[in-house]
Amino acid sequence: MPQLAELDRLRVVLESTRNPLNLGAAARAMSNFGALRLRVVNPYEVAFREARSAVGAAADVLSSAEEFTTLAEAVADCGLVVGTTAIHYRDLQHSVHRLDEGAALVRQYMAVAPVAIIFGCEKTGLSNEDLAHCHWLIHIPTRDEHLSMNLGQAVAVTLYELSRLSAPLASLDQQDPVIGSELERLTKSLLNTLQLSGYATPASLGATEEKVRRLLRRMSLNARDAELLLGMLRQIDWKLRSNPDKPKP
Amino acid sequence: MPQLAELDRLRVVLESTRNPLNLGAAARAMSNFGALRLRVVNPYEVAFREARSAVGAAADVLSSAEEFTTLAEAVADCGLVVGTTAIHYRDLQHSVHRLDEGAALVRQYMAVAPVAIIFGCEKTGLSNEDLAHCHWLIHIPTRDEHLSMNLGQAVAVTLYELSRLSAPLASLDQQDPVIGSELERLTKSLLNTLQLSGYATPASLGATEEKVRRLLRRMSLNARDAELLLGMLRQIDWKLRSNPDKPKP
Repeated sequence: MPQLAELDRLRVVLESTRNPLNLGAAARAMSNFGALRLRVVNPYEVAFREARSAVGAAADVLSSAEEFTTLAEAVADCGLVVGTTAIHYRDLQHSVHRLDEGAALVRQYMAVAPVAIIFGCEKTGLSNEDLAHCHWLIHIPTRDEHLSMNLGQAVAVTLYELSRLSAPLASLDQQDPVIGSELERLTKSLLNTLQLSGYATPASLGATEEKVRRLLRRMSLNARDAELLLGMLRQIDWKLRSNPDKPKP
Repeated sequence: MPQLAELDRLRVVLESTRNPLNLGAAARAMSNFGALRLRVVNPYEVAFREARSAVGAAADVLSSAEEFTTLAEAVADCGLVVGTTAIHYRDLQHSVHRLDEGAALVRQYMAVAPVAIIFGCEKTGLSNEDLAHCHWLIHIPTRDEHLSMNLGQAVAVTLYELSRLSAPLASLDQQDPVIGSELERLTKSLLNTLQLSGYATPASLGATEEKVRRLLRRMSLNARDAELLLGMLRQIDWKLRSNPDKPKP
């Protein structure tokens, strides 16, 4: 009888990790629980080299780790992107699930598409820019007096919960999810429409981009919905472009 | 509402720990999950001194740690002594429970008496002599190819499971949902934009209306998302209206 749930579709993404010991510890926990696909985004180079050169139990995970310069690239093939946060209600723009609930959702989702789970850097966690790529967040319940976990331990606890075998779950309401690169295409497309319409000005563009990125990830779009929205935006853009520079008050 | 089960009656016992980083990591996880009573048996003295001298989040746990020379003394006041093992059936003299089952038993037991949970030394785990002090064992399910966990991570996972509250949490998923009338307002607004842009023609209007209505209900919008979208649509409409009837091919 298998001891663990299958985690082949899970991508563990470490963003801006500083400490080689934490990279090694995360990789070891991954190897323990059978999550073998590590992606590192913008790691502190010395730490990454040092961790990779280590021999030992997690060497396979580290040597096959993929390196990316942006989080968007690291999650481009993923249908669900889940962030991790120490704080229960850090950010009202995202749903926050307790780890056990979130893990059940992730397991369901992995039946249909790759899922990324993101751990931020040791000092600061995930930035607002990182969070904009996440569909929702999980948190591990800890004491109010000491919320923040060590990175390697947080990875271990998360993978323990994800690999937990449980009774099969009811079918997923989300077939055919949008993968990250398609969501990013839709993000750029909506942003373009908002620029053409004057909703996004050069001064507000950065803030609007983050707002749009979050909004589209909160919506649980499937691939067909994304196509539908892209078609609408194309037509609106065409119409907006066809009559430039004649705004009336 | 408490996030964690009460672990005041738990004693975490580290037997012959060699590495100060592991002592520190175990103490940090204890502090995270509210298990504040650390007992060390026969630690490598240098490691214990080094770990104790560290400042930081787990300093309280380390400075109040009790030191013993034998396991028997360390568990003298405990009504239940539970060992930990990486191996499923190492020892036919003990019952071995999977962590989640074992944790449920430990929680029950803590209602009546102090419980000790023992972690062996990094290299060799618990000796046969140590095991003789244990009522039963727990193991954390890991891959056959890589059974042995890092000590600090094993402590973290074990305490995560022990501190788990079994009571169901209300789902945090949908704060502040859009009420039906607001969704309908958004539906009409998007439909209006699609008409202005030429996406919806008089012939397709009925079909498009249904498509838009379904689309917006599949998205799990909250009230603020709906406001945001309405604002975008208002601006797009204004721009579309400001230049009527001049489509270019």
